[in-house]
Amino acid sequence: MARPISFVTGNAKKLEEVRAILGARFPREIVAVKLDLPELQGEIDDICKLKCLEAARQVKGPVMVEDTCLCFNALKGLPGPYIKWFLDKLGPEGLHKLLDGWEDKSAQAVCTFAYTDRPDGEVILFQGRTEGDIVAPRGPRDFGWDPVFQPTGYDQTYAELPKPKKNEISHRYRALAKLAEHFADESK
Amino acid sequence: MARPISFVTGNAKKLEEVRAILGARFPREIVAVKLDLPELQGEIDDICKLKCLEAARQVKGPVMVEDTCLCFNALKGLPGPYIKWFLDKLGPEGLHKLLDGWEDKSAQAVCTFAYTDRPDGEVILFQGRTEGDIVAPRGPRDFGWDPVFQPTGYDQTYAELPKPKKNEISHRYRALAKLAEHFADESK
Repeated sequence: MARPISFVTGNAKKLEEVRAILGARFPREIVAVKLDLPELQGEIDDICKLKCLEAARQVKGPVMVEDTCLCFNALKGLPGPYIKWFLDKLGPEGLHKLLDGWEDKSAQAVCTFAYTDRPDGEVILFQGRTEGDIVAPRGPRDFGWDPVFQPTGYDQTYAELPKPKKNEISHRYRALAKLAEHFADESK
Repeated sequence: MARPISFVTGNAKKLEEVRAILGARFPREIVAVKLDLPELQGEIDDICKLKCLEAARQVKGPVMVEDTCLCFNALKGLPGPYIKWFLDKLGPEGLHKLLDGWEDKSAQAVCTFAYTDRPDGEVILFQGRTEGDIVAPRGPRDFGWDPVFQPTGYDQTYAELPKPKKNEISHRYRALAKLAEHFADESK
């Protein structure tokens, strides 16, 4: 049987979520590992690939890393991979204010899972995107930038949407669906 | 005699500038080396320290790296180390527009030189700061964000100021002055 996949996260809840979305038919075992990985600057795909290879070097086996970006179209994709710092320093209100100078408030939430089976292996990316708009914050404040992201076709923000509904359309769900599909094909 | 200091830069002009500012009395030889160093996310000082140690590992000797940040006070120091990406994607106009939502247009230009004499050595930081405001771009467009940064006490932007005047008050000059002082003390 194939070795378990080490999913790099410091958050046990994240592992549970991933397992729940991938479902019981997912053919590989997934275990959580906590690693101190460098966070690089650059384009999303490059950041994920390098982080994944570094994780594989440390784990010496199959690994999976996750990265989330919030890309404002008016800002040509920024803050993108740096969204964490912008949220930390400016809060949800500040993220919305960043776009005061632009009429275009559209944005993309992008989740990338990167997988490789060994340190010198190929890295496969599974990317999920959800289109939406950056709005003045509404809804509970307990999860990152969810209060300012309103997915296209909805009149509620990620934070306001019922959890099952959000999960159904989320960038994270879409990335994991691609990952599940890949491994389902592989195990046929 | 102490080994020469390898200054990490891909730009021969930068080496000349550094030598010119440090002056003939600088007690160490400086040579330029071009390295491919990872650019990390994080706080300025941490980014510089890690980059410097990685350079020392590659060079196996004394190294000096340089990093420039443009920190908007209203954005709690951001874009900071990510200014390069914001300038690339948004141009000088976009940098100015980023502050449309805030009355406070003040900013700090921060230059950090990091030095260490060996891969497991202590990293010493020399930081120069120049206070100013982010204004609508004025002046020649050939040097980065210079057209949007107007130093406090001047009515011209970095781009408009005569070069000798800019050099006198620049964040880069101030960082190098500290570096020169350190080595002058050391060689006494």
